Amino acid sequence: MARIAIDMDGVMADSTQQYINWYANRYGVTVAKESLLGKPETTGFPLDGVVRQFLYEPNFFRTKPVIAGAQEVIKALQEKHEVFIVSAAMEFPLSLAEKLAWLEEHFPFISWHNIVFCGYKHIVAADYLIDDHVKNLSTFKGEPLMFTAPHNVNVQEFKRVNTWEEVGALLL
Amino acid sequence: MARIAIDMDGVMADSTQQYINWYANRYGVTVAKESLLGKPETTGFPLDGVVRQFLYEPNFFRTKPVIAGAQEVIKALQEKHEVFIVSAAMEFPLSLAEKLAWLEEHFPFISWHNIVFCGYKHIVAADYLIDDHVKNLSTFKGEPLMFTAPHNVNVQEFKRVNTWEEVGALLL
Repeated sequence: MARIAIDMDGVMADSTQQYINWYANRYGVTVAKESLLGKPETTGFPLDGVVRQFLYEPNFFRTKPVIAGAQEVIKALQEKHEVFIVSAAMEFPLSLAEKLAWLEEHFPFISWHNIVFCGYKHIVAADYLIDDHVKNLSTFKGEPLMFTAPHNVNVQEFKRVNTWEEVGALLL
Repeated sequence: MARIAIDMDGVMADSTQQYINWYANRYGVTVAKESLLGKPETTGFPLDGVVRQFLYEPNFFRTKPVIAGAQEVIKALQEKHEVFIVSAAMEFPLSLAEKLAWLEEHFPFISWHNIVFCGYKHIVAADYLIDDHVKNLSTFKGEPLMFTAPHNVNVQEFKRVNTWEEVGALLL
């Protein structure tokens, strides 16, 4: 049994799709996911800086789509391992309650005991961290696993998992 | 430099005084702090079970008094050590935003990067944990320090700090 820490945004919750959806809804332009490859998160949209502002709006975190396979694989991981959800939620105070409600809706099998909202993630002791951001993976003491997201496709330094199917194949 | 994890309730925030204040305000009876010594937290009040319900009410966590010396000593600890606030806030979803606002009001010098809201605390990697509860201290991998609270006065198994002055003497 290993202890597995799992990031929310970009790993369980489809942040990119939510940026695209909210941008389309607000500005009437649907940006193709492929056009965001390799660009820093929240950038690559026609109007500069507006996607970043979505993060401070009510309901943004509450309504993110679930990434395909996350529910099934995390449920299975829980049966074999100790699973913790570790989200850097502190930066966006509105997101705290929304993220908790989102988890309750989509991942009701995860206990509140196993949820961590933090800032820096290097305080987390686990065997694996599945995350989409270099800043979190690079300070992690266990084995970092980079979950592929459009903004990180050019990062070379971490073992990569492209889908939840691949996470399952590695850890189940 | 050490990494020091500090619990909020009963260590930074005076939970016992808040129980007494809210009970007095609601039921007109002021319970003496001394009468609560050695009794499980939230018990020892004339009406059974009502103090526990305060934990689910708006503003309960937002308005707790600060424990004497916490502000000065934590500020000084920050200059010498890496300080993280680690609170088991997940059990009470209303408390998340209230605890963050309480920290901003009373401890504005603590960055959101260094705040952790969790359930189980054994996921936290630190050199010291200052906490008032056996369940958190007993699973901690570093050096546990029991901060004295009425409910824990009979616990023998941990090194004890009775006041923030004593924390300062030990870690500064």
